[in-house]
Amino acid sequence: MQAYALTVDKFLEHAAKWSPDREVVSVDEDGAVTRIGYAALRERANGLSGALVSLGLKVGDRVGTLAWNTQHHFEMYYAAMGAGLVCHTLNPRLTATQLAAMINEAGERALAFSSNLAPLAAQLVALCPMLENLIVMDGDLAPSFAFQRPRTWRHEALLAESGAPVGWGAFAEDAPAGLCYTSGTTGKPKGVLYTHRSNYLHTLRALQADAFALTGSDAVLVAVPMFHANGWGLPFAAPAVGAKLVLPGRNADGASLARLMREEGVTVAVGVQTVWLGVLDHLDASDSDLPALERVIIGGSKCPDALIERMESRFAARVQTSWGMTELSPLGTVESPRAAPSAERGAGRAPMGLDLKLTDAEGVTLPQQRGVMGRLKVKGASVVDCYFNADADALDAEGYFDTGDLALIGDDGTLSICGRSKDLIKSGGEWINPAEIEEIVGRHPAVGLVAVIGREDEKWGERPVLIVEPRQGQAVDTQSLLASLRGKVADWWIPDDVEQIETMPLAATGKIDKIKLRADYAKDRFAAQGASRWRV
Amino acid sequence: MQAYALTVDKFLEHAAKWSPDREVVSVDEDGAVTRIGYAALRERANGLSGALVSLGLKVGDRVGTLAWNTQHHFEMYYAAMGAGLVCHTLNPRLTATQLAAMINEAGERALAFSSNLAPLAAQLVALCPMLENLIVMDGDLAPSFAFQRPRTWRHEALLAESGAPVGWGAFAEDAPAGLCYTSGTTGKPKGVLYTHRSNYLHTLRALQADAFALTGSDAVLVAVPMFHANGWGLPFAAPAVGAKLVLPGRNADGASLARLMREEGVTVAVGVQTVWLGVLDHLDASDSDLPALERVIIGGSKCPDALIERMESRFAARVQTSWGMTELSPLGTVESPRAAPSAERGAGRAPMGLDLKLTDAEGVTLPQQRGVMGRLKVKGASVVDCYFNADADALDAEGYFDTGDLALIGDDGTLSICGRSKDLIKSGGEWINPAEIEEIVGRHPAVGLVAVIGREDEKWGERPVLIVEPRQGQAVDTQSLLASLRGKVADWWIPDDVEQIETMPLAATGKIDKIKLRADYAKDRFAAQGASRWRV
Repeated sequence: MQAYALTVDKFLEHAAKWSPDREVVSVDEDGAVTRIGYAALRERANGLSGALVSLGLKVGDRVGTLAWNTQHHFEMYYAAMGAGLVCHTLNPRLTATQLAAMINEAGERALAFSSNLAPLAAQLVALCPMLENLIVMDGDLAPSFAFQRPRTWRHEALLAESGAPVGWGAFAEDAPAGLCYTSGTTGKPKGVLYTHRSNYLHTLRALQADAFALTGSDAVLVAVPMFHANGWGLPFAAPAVGAKLVLPGRNADGASLARLMREEGVTVAVGVQTVWLGVLDHLDASDSDLPALERVIIGGSKCPDALIERMESRFAARVQTSWGMTELSPLGTVESPRAAPSAERGAGRAPMGLDLKLTDAEGVTLPQQRGVMGRLKVKGASVVDCYFNADADALDAEGYFDTGDLALIGDDGTLSICGRSKDLIKSGGEWINPAEIEEIVGRHPAVGLVAVIGREDEKWGERPVLIVEPRQGQAVDTQSLLASLRGKVADWWIPDDVEQIETMPLAATGKIDKIKLRADYAKDRFAAQGASRWRV
Repeated sequence: MQAYALTVDKFLEHAAKWSPDREVVSVDEDGAVTRIGYAALRERANGLSGALVSLGLKVGDRVGTLAWNTQHHFEMYYAAMGAGLVCHTLNPRLTATQLAAMINEAGERALAFSSNLAPLAAQLVALCPMLENLIVMDGDLAPSFAFQRPRTWRHEALLAESGAPVGWGAFAEDAPAGLCYTSGTTGKPKGVLYTHRSNYLHTLRALQADAFALTGSDAVLVAVPMFHANGWGLPFAAPAVGAKLVLPGRNADGASLARLMREEGVTVAVGVQTVWLGVLDHLDASDSDLPALERVIIGGSKCPDALIERMESRFAARVQTSWGMTELSPLGTVESPRAAPSAERGAGRAPMGLDLKLTDAEGVTLPQQRGVMGRLKVKGASVVDCYFNADADALDAEGYFDTGDLALIGDDGTLSICGRSKDLIKSGGEWINPAEIEEIVGRHPAVGLVAVIGREDEKWGERPVLIVEPRQGQAVDTQSLLASLRGKVADWWIPDDVEQIETMPLAATGKIDKIKLRADYAKDRFAAQGASRWRV
């Protein structure tokens, strides 16, 4: 059969040919909406490839992007990847120091950024000596940002002056296409180097009718950042089927999103739960609806059942829960839009192309893979084998990647994530799972954010400490919090201490920063006194 | 990213793990229904792999199958492919001579057959000296078929005695998995050697929500033969998503299929139009319905709009037209189950993963690819590059395979097949398309089957001849047939002669055998007389 390389440029080529007028809609900083058909977009992205090559960039070179969900960012994805460059998406919510470490590790030669991120870009220029070219994706730079050292181009001017057709896909399918760093909430951020093949196969996997199930009739809102695991792969999946793609730019407030969804007839909306909370509140406040919406795909963290019910009822749409991670490109499991969800909403099932297994703490496969919690390991064509620049691969002897998650698989194959194995607390030789405690305490009306970490303990090794950020204006009664746990977890799981703090430290992706919490609260302040705080 | 070979054994592994109790239902010769879950089926197929290996078969060896759509045939697919053997599906409707040519070309070492095909198998044994092992898939052999030379095994006994677990997929993804010969209506049958990769990618392509869109909630009736292009890939697609698979065995009459569909709650039924005619007639006669049926996927030849309407109305189900060929694994284009069909029902659109182009007769790409008829060429990971045992590849300079079809692509991307380029008649330097003439004449109430071929002509090169099999009990008036063409085709397209024949010669797949017709009717019987029969 034919040698036919699985490269991502084929997605946009397919859309340009078969859905030439289907639109990509993009919102800029001022709320203005631009729209362009896939055929015209393909011409622009292909011309931009030529412009990048004219800057001296060569196959395998990394191009950084520091941008929101916009047409220009989408163009840069395909311009870079189609020409064999590696598109390194950077999270603008990280600090300049964090980003510079990534840029320097990746050896980036060019950086494309949104003009509203110019101050951050200026810091990066100072920290990243290898940067030779800067591309301002949209808008104009203030005169104060007249960068001296690297050459600076405006995206539109570069395209107009140096844009030239390029033959896309002139490389093997296992050539790298994208680079994305993990959030680093449990360690130093690690780079995942996606290949064309891994992205292509991820796309077909996600497109299955029991998964994202996108069709040419859909209008898809990408409310997950394009700098995070390729926007859950939607910039590939939407053109692959000729779906309309709706990119909300920087503004993800409820009112902006609701208006955009209504005006563009969004049928499938994808994002984390906090985004939808804003939309729900806006709909309630404005007494309005989203009549075209059919499905909302959520992920990122476990969503309370009550919120799922509220979404399904208020949106009159089906919610599909999911689980994924940067290392998985990112889709792991997802609820089918068609099958009835399991009674307790987990994270759906694994569509064809991903193998899962549960092991014990030592990595031995559990004899029983249903109804028992274990460490979740995965295998597949879109799963990382070795982190970027790492010395050793990240796989076990059977070729599985350890997700670091604790999970349980129900009889019907539904996956439920139960916590992070690195968060587990070992107390007296037995494991305590912070996630279970956090879930119970989190239901308390006075609690805003909650985290449980292990604190060094001379006698028990570790003991759990509860850290709480009270809901604004509320007071938390420590004893009532601990009492709420009685009978729901083993007595020896109940934390020894409760720390109330004003502001929970958050990592760049919005997740609670347990590294910081451990640094601040995990030392046993009483060890010197020999006091035992173990309660039975 | 991980090295993860795209091999078809993963489909059944996935089903066994995630849909262990989802059934494969199979009907035997007597109409008895057997059912088995994917987990148990996987164990049997894997054990059968071990049994095949115990017979001395090695990676790359060919195993022939001569069988209907049954569980045993399904098991043999996976037993062979999983162990790296090549499953060569043989069409029991071909003659022993035709089949023996294929078996000998493939160098088959084993042949598995249904007991009700024993007479044909016996003929093959006599013609195929390389056959070392015979496997009787189901039922018992009559004593008269006590084969002497090759060792003969019963499928069940072989499994019970020599079945042993085997590690599936121990080969590269471009290893051959299946072999299927084209029908050979326009030349000698040619073998297409499918690989694991081509079958895997074909499966994901077909599973897209705008294509077959199968889900774990579906029950799929495979009314296309498993000996023809892997049963349109459904034995791969159904386990990949955990759909129930319904295999009707040999009996494809309307009453049997309707009962099976009703009893098994079939939601998606796949087959050629003639099969559904029988089901429609049965439903009408018995005043019954198929309440679970949602979709009927048809292909094989262009289906009249009136029949599509009758199906959609009587079945209360959506019809999806499609086009494919053995060389394409086989899916080319298909209507979306969701989008409104184009006004004139063509053959649907190309799901991601197949590139189409239209060229002129010399192979030059047409400058305009919409609304103009051209030769259809295709490119993709599941498209043949070189026929089995052929000296040269079958691709043009750009890597496209020439389908031999004439096609037109509408503004919305819908493909319509307009005829076969090899059937075209060149008359006075201009082309005549028999398919257009056949369609018009075929509407005449007295006409059963119709074909137009070119006859040698001294002056014009070729001239069209109309060959008609009248509908039973009807008389055809030659002049009224020709008159029906006036004003609908150019005058010089109107055939010079009409031949009435009692029985139209059909090839093994049921298509009209134009090779035979040309042999019988294409010689210019009057050339010697120098008579001109050219009419203007």
